[in-house]
Amino acid sequence: MIKQSGTALFFLTLFSFSTAMAGELEQQAETLIDTALASSLSYEIVESLTTEVGPRLAGTEAEARARDWAVKSMTDLGFSNVHVEPFEMPGWERGQISVDVGAPYSQPLTASALGKSIGTPIGGFDAQVVRFKDFAELMAAPEGSITGKIAFIDGSMIRTQDGSGYGMAGPRRWVGAREAARRGAIAVLIRSVGTDYHRNPHTGGTVYAEDVPRIPAAALSNPDADQLARLLALKSDLTLHYTQTSRILGTVKSGNVVGEITGSEFPDEVVLLAAHLDSWDNGTGAIDDGAGVAIVTAAAKIIADFGTPKRTIRVVLFGAEEPGLFGAKAYVTAHRQDFDQIMMVTESDFGAGRVWRMDTGIAKTDEAKADRIQAVLARLGVTKGLRTASGGSDVSALSGAGAPAISLRQNGWDYFDLHHTPDDTLDKIDPADLAQNTAVYAAYGWMVANIEGGFHAPE
Amino acid sequence: MIKQSGTALFFLTLFSFSTAMAGELEQQAETLIDTALASSLSYEIVESLTTEVGPRLAGTEAEARARDWAVKSMTDLGFSNVHVEPFEMPGWERGQISVDVGAPYSQPLTASALGKSIGTPIGGFDAQVVRFKDFAELMAAPEGSITGKIAFIDGSMIRTQDGSGYGMAGPRRWVGAREAARRGAIAVLIRSVGTDYHRNPHTGGTVYAEDVPRIPAAALSNPDADQLARLLALKSDLTLHYTQTSRILGTVKSGNVVGEITGSEFPDEVVLLAAHLDSWDNGTGAIDDGAGVAIVTAAAKIIADFGTPKRTIRVVLFGAEEPGLFGAKAYVTAHRQDFDQIMMVTESDFGAGRVWRMDTGIAKTDEAKADRIQAVLARLGVTKGLRTASGGSDVSALSGAGAPAISLRQNGWDYFDLHHTPDDTLDKIDPADLAQNTAVYAAYGWMVANIEGGFHAPE
Repeated sequence: MIKQSGTALFFLTLFSFSTAMAGELEQQAETLIDTALASSLSYEIVESLTTEVGPRLAGTEAEARARDWAVKSMTDLGFSNVHVEPFEMPGWERGQISVDVGAPYSQPLTASALGKSIGTPIGGFDAQVVRFKDFAELMAAPEGSITGKIAFIDGSMIRTQDGSGYGMAGPRRWVGAREAARRGAIAVLIRSVGTDYHRNPHTGGTVYAEDVPRIPAAALSNPDADQLARLLALKSDLTLHYTQTSRILGTVKSGNVVGEITGSEFPDEVVLLAAHLDSWDNGTGAIDDGAGVAIVTAAAKIIADFGTPKRTIRVVLFGAEEPGLFGAKAYVTAHRQDFDQIMMVTESDFGAGRVWRMDTGIAKTDEAKADRIQAVLARLGVTKGLRTASGGSDVSALSGAGAPAISLRQNGWDYFDLHHTPDDTLDKIDPADLAQNTAVYAAYGWMVANIEGGFHAPE
Repeated sequence: MIKQSGTALFFLTLFSFSTAMAGELEQQAETLIDTALASSLSYEIVESLTTEVGPRLAGTEAEARARDWAVKSMTDLGFSNVHVEPFEMPGWERGQISVDVGAPYSQPLTASALGKSIGTPIGGFDAQVVRFKDFAELMAAPEGSITGKIAFIDGSMIRTQDGSGYGMAGPRRWVGAREAARRGAIAVLIRSVGTDYHRNPHTGGTVYAEDVPRIPAAALSNPDADQLARLLALKSDLTLHYTQTSRILGTVKSGNVVGEITGSEFPDEVVLLAAHLDSWDNGTGAIDDGAGVAIVTAAAKIIADFGTPKRTIRVVLFGAEEPGLFGAKAYVTAHRQDFDQIMMVTESDFGAGRVWRMDTGIAKTDEAKADRIQAVLARLGVTKGLRTASGGSDVSALSGAGAPAISLRQNGWDYFDLHHTPDDTLDKIDPADLAQNTAVYAAYGWMVANIEGGFHAPE
């Protein structure tokens, strides 16, 4: 009886100790979830940014105003060490565009210059347009086969929850200009990389190559791409008049904005929560990436109000993500000396849809800790995911340089209806969905910043 | 026995005679419905018009090309008496627009000039903007109360099946410029009269008054109207820089296009099926009113292929509906002499949603005949409606002048998401919905053109 009793007591003690230890962090996270779900802070932040600053193209005066806004917002919210880390980058100006179908079907098409595209000669040019049903068909065309012509790269885009349709459809935007130029084209028009059917073309960066001429590049809206395909079926030698005044500028200024909740025990161990402050110029950057700015900022504030985490939570609002991760690259360069302090990187940059999956990019031996976090987030609908996380757009430069990463994957079902279009505005954000994100980041941030042993990079 | 037998025979004969007479027309209409539902002709017509001509603003070269297209299409389809009835009208040019918020919230807003608006002075002007929460609030403001300012007329729009939300929201567009000018405003911006949340403002005609200055007028998209309201909540003396180069031109040419299926017995009794050929210039006029053009043209062709109706079916594709029913007014003037030939007017001009209700504007003594038609259309989901029909937009000028009218009311639930926006494109038309419309018009047109006694104007 004594022994039995002693054994029972021993196991009872062990169990209590275990649940008390495991349970305390979980209970704190649960409280943070309740607080975040009841808070409108993240919505207030994204409303403020998208209203007071609005569009904030990288390297412009508007992006500088966004940095001022971020410094003031983080200071007002009580963050520590709020500062801007400036960097330089090549500037770009959108200018005007017109794409007009030639006789006998004279009519304008709706198009937007791709980011970083050069313009046409002044006054534009008239040229025959040649359709490629997809990027693969362009790639199969021989060099010199479309000399002097405008290449129209058509194609589809699949709607997916995880955004994988972007990887499939993206190449026509990312390298369509380069590949069309390689084959002799004087300009390229692509079907928007987007899943909607509104006449708001999807902009986004295009990349030139050193060894081929730079040619003007623009995206047609999906309805306009349909129209051009129909017109080419009626008249295969159709011509277009295409004028675009976009231009690449010299060096301009940008910057990353940083603010911290300084850790109580391990201030030099940094849990980096990121988003990007710049947006394309055609919308007000609500889902890309005002939502992310709001989610990580509000989550850190909710954590700070709850208590001081053991590790430092560092919010980094990157500049100049859209034109090519200039802020992220500058951050890696600037933080070579203290890079090892970064114990975790996570970015919110996929809209305002609910987080549904947690992917990890950490040491195998740390997976049990990640599982503890995911178990808490399960209440919010977050499932266990893949072990291939980069952490998100900007921070992929950090995880690529060796930082542990966790990705909190958002539901992107509707994301590419709005992505890089004028329709990326505040009204597209569901406050309840945004609050779910904030709750996920608050609980996650707290647990990562407090969990025993922390996280390490994948082997 | 003989007497009984004789009585039975009498009633049997009467019944058979009655159903044979009633049934024959119904059976013919049923066959037309089957044929129309299986036909893609109406979709082919709207695809051809919106692709080959595209936007076709009243009084422009594009509208002239639309007339050429209509004459060729109706001729190719075998219509009789195909011709253009020309008329003149005041021209209008949209030009360019920019609306920019002043410091400290500098950002562009998306706006479209209202149809027939004048422009701003060259270079535009900077002025304070004053918000009215709705048109009623503007109307309650005293004369001279907004001198030198830009009036922003906000307001809502209710989504309805029957389009009644348009009547409630419309005044801010129709007479907002006039009423704002009466109170001293130098320009007016309205919240788009539309139910969508895309950054494609809804254009549409505005009407000036003789006794107040003409001022420039434009519509903001719904997201931009939200943005402006939020900015005004932050800074009540917000200024805008507003530039618009739209201008009213001199007299330009337009025309109505007419084609007929000549009646076999009563060729001078005309069943007039209408739509309008012009569109606003920002979309390709698919739902407004390429769909109507396609529906009435295809229905008449399907009737002609089925057999010759007793009365003449006259398809009239009106010009210049959008800027103010110029084609309809010209038609009434031109047909004063033979106006009495018009036995029925019906227009399709409310998109491509399914017909769901049949309203009448006919003599009470003819209602039983209308009921016979509605009974056949019930299979397609058409209910019995009101006795207040005008027949539709253009033909309201004809019913107003005394012609009998029936309105085949379409489902407008989504219509004001697209109405007068760049998004009015072919992809928005559901081919099955369009075929339902064509089936309704084919059965309806045949029955009206053959029914004994015809129709008469309301008492």
